[in-house]
Amino acid sequence: MIDDTVFPIEPWRLREASLNLDILAQSESLFAQSNGHIGFRGNLDEGEPHGQPGTYLNSFYEVRPLPYAEAGYGYPEDGQTVVNVTNGKLMRLLVDDEPFDVRYGSLHEHERVLDFRSGTLKRTALWESPAGKRIKVISTRLVSLTQRSVAAIEYVVEAQDEFVRVTVQSELVANEQLPQSSNDPRVAAVLDKPLDPVQHENSDRGAILLHRTRASNLMMAAAMDHDVEVPGRVEVTTGSGMDWATTTVICGLRPGQRLRIVKYLAYGWSSLRSRPALRDQAAAALSSARYTGWQGLLDAQREYLDDFWDGADVEVEGDNAIQQAVRFALFQVLQASARAERRAIPGKGLTGTGYDGHTFWDTEGFVLPLLTYTEPAAAADALRWRASILPMAKERAAQLDLKGAAFPWRTIRGEECSAYWPAGTAAFHVNADIAMAFERYRIVTGDDSLDAECGLRVLVETARLWLSLGQHDRHGVWHIDGVTGPDEYTAVVRDNVFTNLMAAANLRAAANACGRHVDAAAAMGVTSEEMAAWRDAADAAHIPFDEELGVHPQSEGFTTLREWDFVDNTVYPLLLNEPYVRLYPAQVVKQADLVLAMHWQGHAFTAEQKARNVDYYERRTTRDSSLSACTQAVMCAEVGHLELAHEYTYEAAMIDLRDLHHNTRDGLHMASLAGAWAALVAGFGGLRDDEGVLKLNPSLPSGISRLRFRLRWRNFRLTVDVNHDDVTYTLRDGPDACLMIRHGDEELELNSRQPTTVPVNRCEPLLAPPPQPPCREPLGRRRM
Amino acid sequence: MIDDTVFPIEPWRLREASLNLDILAQSESLFAQSNGHIGFRGNLDEGEPHGQPGTYLNSFYEVRPLPYAEAGYGYPEDGQTVVNVTNGKLMRLLVDDEPFDVRYGSLHEHERVLDFRSGTLKRTALWESPAGKRIKVISTRLVSLTQRSVAAIEYVVEAQDEFVRVTVQSELVANEQLPQSSNDPRVAAVLDKPLDPVQHENSDRGAILLHRTRASNLMMAAAMDHDVEVPGRVEVTTGSGMDWATTTVICGLRPGQRLRIVKYLAYGWSSLRSRPALRDQAAAALSSARYTGWQGLLDAQREYLDDFWDGADVEVEGDNAIQQAVRFALFQVLQASARAERRAIPGKGLTGTGYDGHTFWDTEGFVLPLLTYTEPAAAADALRWRASILPMAKERAAQLDLKGAAFPWRTIRGEECSAYWPAGTAAFHVNADIAMAFERYRIVTGDDSLDAECGLRVLVETARLWLSLGQHDRHGVWHIDGVTGPDEYTAVVRDNVFTNLMAAANLRAAANACGRHVDAAAAMGVTSEEMAAWRDAADAAHIPFDEELGVHPQSEGFTTLREWDFVDNTVYPLLLNEPYVRLYPAQVVKQADLVLAMHWQGHAFTAEQKARNVDYYERRTTRDSSLSACTQAVMCAEVGHLELAHEYTYEAAMIDLRDLHHNTRDGLHMASLAGAWAALVAGFGGLRDDEGVLKLNPSLPSGISRLRFRLRWRNFRLTVDVNHDDVTYTLRDGPDACLMIRHGDEELELNSRQPTTVPVNRCEPLLAPPPQPPCREPLGRRRM
Repeated sequence: MIDDTVFPIEPWRLREASLNLDILAQSESLFAQSNGHIGFRGNLDEGEPHGQPGTYLNSFYEVRPLPYAEAGYGYPEDGQTVVNVTNGKLMRLLVDDEPFDVRYGSLHEHERVLDFRSGTLKRTALWESPAGKRIKVISTRLVSLTQRSVAAIEYVVEAQDEFVRVTVQSELVANEQLPQSSNDPRVAAVLDKPLDPVQHENSDRGAILLHRTRASNLMMAAAMDHDVEVPGRVEVTTGSGMDWATTTVICGLRPGQRLRIVKYLAYGWSSLRSRPALRDQAAAALSSARYTGWQGLLDAQREYLDDFWDGADVEVEGDNAIQQAVRFALFQVLQASARAERRAIPGKGLTGTGYDGHTFWDTEGFVLPLLTYTEPAAAADALRWRASILPMAKERAAQLDLKGAAFPWRTIRGEECSAYWPAGTAAFHVNADIAMAFERYRIVTGDDSLDAECGLRVLVETARLWLSLGQHDRHGVWHIDGVTGPDEYTAVVRDNVFTNLMAAANLRAAANACGRHVDAAAAMGVTSEEMAAWRDAADAAHIPFDEELGVHPQSEGFTTLREWDFVDNTVYPLLLNEPYVRLYPAQVVKQADLVLAMHWQGHAFTAEQKARNVDYYERRTTRDSSLSACTQAVMCAEVGHLELAHEYTYEAAMIDLRDLHHNTRDGLHMASLAGAWAALVAGFGGLRDDEGVLKLNPSLPSGISRLRFRLRWRNFRLTVDVNHDDVTYTLRDGPDACLMIRHGDEELELNSRQPTTVPVNRCEPLLAPPPQPPCREPLGRRRM
Repeated sequence: MIDDTVFPIEPWRLREASLNLDILAQSESLFAQSNGHIGFRGNLDEGEPHGQPGTYLNSFYEVRPLPYAEAGYGYPEDGQTVVNVTNGKLMRLLVDDEPFDVRYGSLHEHERVLDFRSGTLKRTALWESPAGKRIKVISTRLVSLTQRSVAAIEYVVEAQDEFVRVTVQSELVANEQLPQSSNDPRVAAVLDKPLDPVQHENSDRGAILLHRTRASNLMMAAAMDHDVEVPGRVEVTTGSGMDWATTTVICGLRPGQRLRIVKYLAYGWSSLRSRPALRDQAAAALSSARYTGWQGLLDAQREYLDDFWDGADVEVEGDNAIQQAVRFALFQVLQASARAERRAIPGKGLTGTGYDGHTFWDTEGFVLPLLTYTEPAAAADALRWRASILPMAKERAAQLDLKGAAFPWRTIRGEECSAYWPAGTAAFHVNADIAMAFERYRIVTGDDSLDAECGLRVLVETARLWLSLGQHDRHGVWHIDGVTGPDEYTAVVRDNVFTNLMAAANLRAAANACGRHVDAAAAMGVTSEEMAAWRDAADAAHIPFDEELGVHPQSEGFTTLREWDFVDNTVYPLLLNEPYVRLYPAQVVKQADLVLAMHWQGHAFTAEQKARNVDYYERRTTRDSSLSACTQAVMCAEVGHLELAHEYTYEAAMIDLRDLHHNTRDGLHMASLAGAWAALVAGFGGLRDDEGVLKLNPSLPSGISRLRFRLRWRNFRLTVDVNHDDVTYTLRDGPDACLMIRHGDEELELNSRQPTTVPVNRCEPLLAPPPQPPCREPLGRRRM
């Protein structure tokens, strides 16, 4: 946990007022910067102390063996793991002859600020060396959202009370020594010095290093160049070796005088391009950055972000903590995806090595809704990445003796990397989640071209997967057996409601897409018989219901399983304290599953069913996954438990800022960050799109006086501004156009000439707010 | 597969008429010798060539890490693996200066004979060296059934046509180099040179080596001594080092002259005893062996075996192959268990390193029935071993948040070593299988003292396990969820019929045992309320039945799962060609599961249900486990498919002799060998004891004209002699005593004064013989 006093609540930035070494690793994740291509953890400029040094390039990975004490057919033999690449963030400083290290001397002031509008991380330190020399260091770091291969650092040293001789070593360092990552010596061997040197060269003021991974055979380049400003004499020299390059700047500063260094960094990697081509690519990016200049990069960064916020900002009046958190969330999700450009968006973005840098269903399920409504180009690029791994997904399906495509549960490059099949391969719902993301993109943007380009192929191949996975019983009911839904505490089940509803939607979407793209579908061999089979299976899909209890079992028989003993088992997460063999056959839920089905496929449930289901599952959900609080917020809001929804929203928003899952050190939870947005926009805003139309139904809890959020829908930008009484919809763009939405259960026509104000629909909850398992009340309840 | 011409069909021995190097590893397993304490693979005396050198001591193991790419709570971190100990079988021979090696020179004759009555492995070789010198080697090896720590070899070299100088090096070699056993470097490191030298010493004619394992910290001693006879001058010297000792015998032989060496070997190990104590123990055993002498050892061996065969032999007239195979089976099962003495009986006995040397439910489920009826003292010792690991089983249950005891799925020492929980931890039925074995021992022997000694504790703690594992639903029906039955192709299910019936029997047996041992039960805290809860759960246990199909689903819903596509999937075993995620939710059966329930808990099924269930499961069973054919034989016989039962009997009997599962090289399948006995005695003999009385109901297939088998029941020895018309029961021992048995459905009183002859009950099958999946007809059908 991170104490709530560490980061003062400020609307547009994350600020640490003094250095907290005990949460250094967590703050490195929180202060991480990225553009989706390059990722820098918020390590201190001087490299040490550190929690986890981290510099990442999207999809730059190494292969490592996946060990099994008892192997099985179809288990992936190789995993993929993100690699810490050449560190260009390093700026080591010597004051006279003493290294600037916050652990020595006296640190009189230290502040770090991640600014969501400027897109910079600014650090100010006032330090007194052990010998009593005081200096001020002001560094500003950016990873450029406009120049994809570029990062830059402005590093300023100011003498305070007396003359100091200052030496700055600006470095590129490959194969940094890292904390031990694995007990398996084979894995450790792969990740210890993962980069083989290929080439190093330097000029007076810069250098370039090229390295290559051994097994995945990827080549990367890191380059730096410098501008140096200082009043007096300065000496600048550069040297380089296989795993390092250092530009050394030496000067003397009188009190008040400043040394200013701007360090330009360029990164690139390729699995295909030649060494000279990659070298030149990095050199060109570096030249371009220097041509733009520091101020130019700063200006472009702000302009990019101004545009983003204009279409994406969420304003929360009455709850300043959530206000800050949702902007932090939007900013970090944007950083993870803005320039990913047909590469994956990992579960942790590029903020740490958690989950080995893998991408999960989180991307399509949680991150892409946010991007589709706020930065649709980034969503399209992420979907193009998925489509690009379709050949691997088809191979995987064939290996599993299935038709169509089976997308990986976790991967970097596209191959399945999950080593535990009951919560990996069996979680086939990832395929429907992907299909849904294509559908949402088409519905929200109104752009059918992505389907033509690649979405149709994904829809068809996932539909084929489902048809081969499911089966009609002797009474004609269609079942899907042996799959795992989102809740990983009950796995390999029959007729998981979430999976069956999502599969049915996938099958229908594929059939409909083939109807829109007749020639392309025919070219894929889709016949009208096949389309009919998809629709028939979708219509016959079994959705179990427990008539006695009046609730949906999460999967067949779930409501008749043993009740979990929550009295004697209150150490969470349960998976670290209870064996699967006990968790699976009990009514204990890791994360929203049936409740998520009600969010994503809400049309399949009546209002009463939703109320009863929420009541049932709230009592049995441990929220041991970071993906749960946001969904519980959304559905609690829908059934009228607005105060409970507010508490879940707070928890979802704080998962990283308060380190609620104790693993923020390994990177930020992108899906949960996106979930904080969903809790507000889908929860209190009531946003739904599962029936192909834009539905909104805002309603606020007592602690939020006003909520204002922005969405993109087709060619419009829509602002939703809600208070406790009414909601005002403002449509921008498309002069004189109108848009039909659904406000609650009613059709409402909006136009771009003037805002439309209507009263808020009040939902009276059918049931009293439910309790949670002991010690699993949402964090919000405990903070009050 | 091993060609059926390799081993001629002879009733009392396994003979290889010429050396087959291509099945050397398999024949090493088949010719293995053991007494349950020491195990020798049938390696050639001279050590090379070899398939797998193997010398084992029961329960002498090393610990190795169990790797998981994705770990989970409760997964065992360490495995146990049998260690190849100091090899005392080695007799290297030099003829003049050329080593006797069957790969060089000319091998004019080579015969190996494992004799089931003498308990020896005799080898005769007539070899011509590359230089043209011919010698005859006759070696006879025994592992003593009467002196537990002792083995011995008589090694005779005879010159043929001309004078030869003969050198024999009789050796002890520790840390032999073995074929690579694992791809995991950590495991390989553990198993490469697993023995640390502790002490070595030698006299002129013998030596002793002491070694210790590193992690499991077990110490072992191997000692040898020699008698040498030769007409002329002979030189005998001995040397030793850390990992070796060699006694060298040099002499000259004229044509017809013989060198005869008797090598006495003694082995011992301990986790507790001191180095001097262990050394002296081995030395004493060696002295004792030498005192007994070679002929004395031979005589005692034959006497021991004569007594065994007198109470255990099975005679099969009309099928000589099965005749030989069942005696081979009885002999090997006896070897695996005779002197195990409170150590485990591994799945492979001490014949190879398959399954890491682990013990499974095979022991109680398949091996102990044979021993209980033929060598009850060995059965009692095996059960005492189980009871001895009860403390570890209780710890494991506590770790799993369960009451009572959870015995390991696989182990050497007692700790759970299974690294795949759906087919390990979840296979809780092992606990009921153990309980059943205690019950059977009591019923068959009439000896309640083992319960008092240790069985009661096992029954009580396993009953407690079941009660904590099962649950009553809202209608009062008792379910066991999330368990795996014998069929590992459908795992983690609800209400596996086999498991539920066995658990119910376990609960009732525990309650009854507590009724017999009131004070001991009270001392364990058993109250009448607890006993009532056990009986109530047993009575309420759910046994699912598919009314529409008129068959029992193997587990809840099984008969509504997808039918397996047997047309396109005919590469067996399926587990090497299909992923679990596809196998689990399909109606494809690895091994008898529901069918095994009908064998072991036959009283719970009507005759019609048995017939219909056999018909249903025959069509869906792949027999990918070596434990299946024997059970299919038993139940096919019971429902009247006698010819099919004959075929399954043949297959069960031939699993190792024909290497049907392609892994006989790793050791023999003890449970399947015992299953060959069960196929005859329980199948064609109709032996059952699940209702506490001795039931027999013999009936023969057309290809067997007469079957005669022996059983021990209480203090009697009973011979059952059946032909196609009638059966004669002959009771021995207990003068003037009588015994009530059930012959078919009728009570029948036997007495020891005269045999009782009654007509055979003919069972007309309700249904036609069922087909099997393509390519899965029993081997018997194809041989015809």
